[in-house]
Amino acid sequence: MLYTIINNEIIPAEKASLRVNDLAIQRGYGIFDFFKTLKNKPIFLEDHLDRFYQSASILQLPVSYSREVLKDLLQQLMAHNNIPDSGIRITLTGGYSADGYTLSSPNLIITQQALPDNRALQTTGMHLATYPHQRQLPAAKSIDYLMAVWLQSFVKQQQAQDVLYHQNNAVTECPRSNFFIVTANDTIVTPGHHILQGVIRKQVLALAAARFAVKEKEVTLQDVYQAKEAFITSTTKNILPVVKVDGQVIGTGAPGSITSLLANDLQQLIEENLK
Amino acid sequence: MLYTIINNEIIPAEKASLRVNDLAIQRGYGIFDFFKTLKNKPIFLEDHLDRFYQSASILQLPVSYSREVLKDLLQQLMAHNNIPDSGIRITLTGGYSADGYTLSSPNLIITQQALPDNRALQTTGMHLATYPHQRQLPAAKSIDYLMAVWLQSFVKQQQAQDVLYHQNNAVTECPRSNFFIVTANDTIVTPGHHILQGVIRKQVLALAAARFAVKEKEVTLQDVYQAKEAFITSTTKNILPVVKVDGQVIGTGAPGSITSLLANDLQQLIEENLK
Repeated sequence: MLYTIINNEIIPAEKASLRVNDLAIQRGYGIFDFFKTLKNKPIFLEDHLDRFYQSASILQLPVSYSREVLKDLLQQLMAHNNIPDSGIRITLTGGYSADGYTLSSPNLIITQQALPDNRALQTTGMHLATYPHQRQLPAAKSIDYLMAVWLQSFVKQQQAQDVLYHQNNAVTECPRSNFFIVTANDTIVTPGHHILQGVIRKQVLALAAARFAVKEKEVTLQDVYQAKEAFITSTTKNILPVVKVDGQVIGTGAPGSITSLLANDLQQLIEENLK
Repeated sequence: MLYTIINNEIIPAEKASLRVNDLAIQRGYGIFDFFKTLKNKPIFLEDHLDRFYQSASILQLPVSYSREVLKDLLQQLMAHNNIPDSGIRITLTGGYSADGYTLSSPNLIITQQALPDNRALQTTGMHLATYPHQRQLPAAKSIDYLMAVWLQSFVKQQQAQDVLYHQNNAVTECPRSNFFIVTANDTIVTPGHHILQGVIRKQVLALAAARFAVKEKEVTLQDVYQAKEAFITSTTKNILPVVKVDGQVIGTGAPGSITSLLANDLQQLIEENLK
């Protein structure tokens, strides 16, 4: 049986619910973070907890759980569920609100599930379609995915696998991943502003800096179309090559060699973390 | 006891809940509408149902309830609760999603509650504070109030009662109401684009047109500061005078005579609807 934590309680997942006056349901108000476990070990947990508390702070949600208590809850959930390779999501909502508008005591939800398999896209690479949009309060991992969910039919229509947001000709991020290009002179470039600071993004920036020139700066749509390689980073996907954007072939149209190199570096780093 | 409808079922309100894999909780994805009942009679119900179905259509949420079935559910809820003067909210969420991202069968929630009392603000008028923001998918009444809830502390700090959004120097709307000005030559002006088409807004436009010149067009921040009168319209508030914006006095600083005239016209129209 699968378990979920609601506030302090571990309960069967199918019974995990929130009353309808919670501000997530009333006003789409809440934050979350999501990390991976491999062999029952959380990957980059401290980074994810840092960001969880930061997102909560940006959205003015008080967290009544210390880092230690939160880690203890995570350990309890992992022990109950016993899914060695998993994704764990910690959500904090605006809470049960009497008037359906004013912030209340946040509700905490922790869910665990098996991980999706993204290996096919490692080999073939992804197609992205761009769309003009800027996420609200981008530094926070809020539950606001209105545009992302709404754009799923657009993505399918464009025969793409995900959307890449841009605003004023500068690209920012995908709904659930960060975006990188490799330029003609082998510089690794990723947008530095108006984005979510991804945990894998941070690790990849550090790994890339050991081998290449690295820049966090504006990336225009033209930069993307003319890139030698492109890839995305995310907790679920690690590094995935991008081979087409808006129907235009990136580089050779096959996953790039620098992308593969960095994907291997990341894989090694994660395996070292498991020791 | 207070009752709520979840999908087809009438249940005690305190037991009304959604499982945590609903897309409202996972991704802030859903729509709603909200109407008033007076003496157990829904006010402008057809307009609200029109917009409910339109919002659902914009968000690609299939509604499995015909207008007649929905009206029947509303009647049942009103009979159970017996709150003659009330607010009724019909919410439709993205549904229980296996992967927490892909649209599923929507969940319907219908809640009823007593109305807040806004009479004090009728006399004193409201203070608004402006903030640069454009709602996502503005023609739909989605549950996305991330910025609205987040800005409550800003509004308090500015000693205002609500926020007025603007973008590129043009004002649009408040989070839960439409915005109007009366110009020096007694023309009634309200923004026509990038807004939610309010049900009371529509009625007020028709009432105003019988007495004054009326224009739906761009309203700049300067237009607002120089207006002779200003007011907001909403289902909960009807017409409320605005007497200060960003700390600047509008007109005489007291509720305007044209605002009062239109508020009376609206009151009469609502009373006629009750007969």
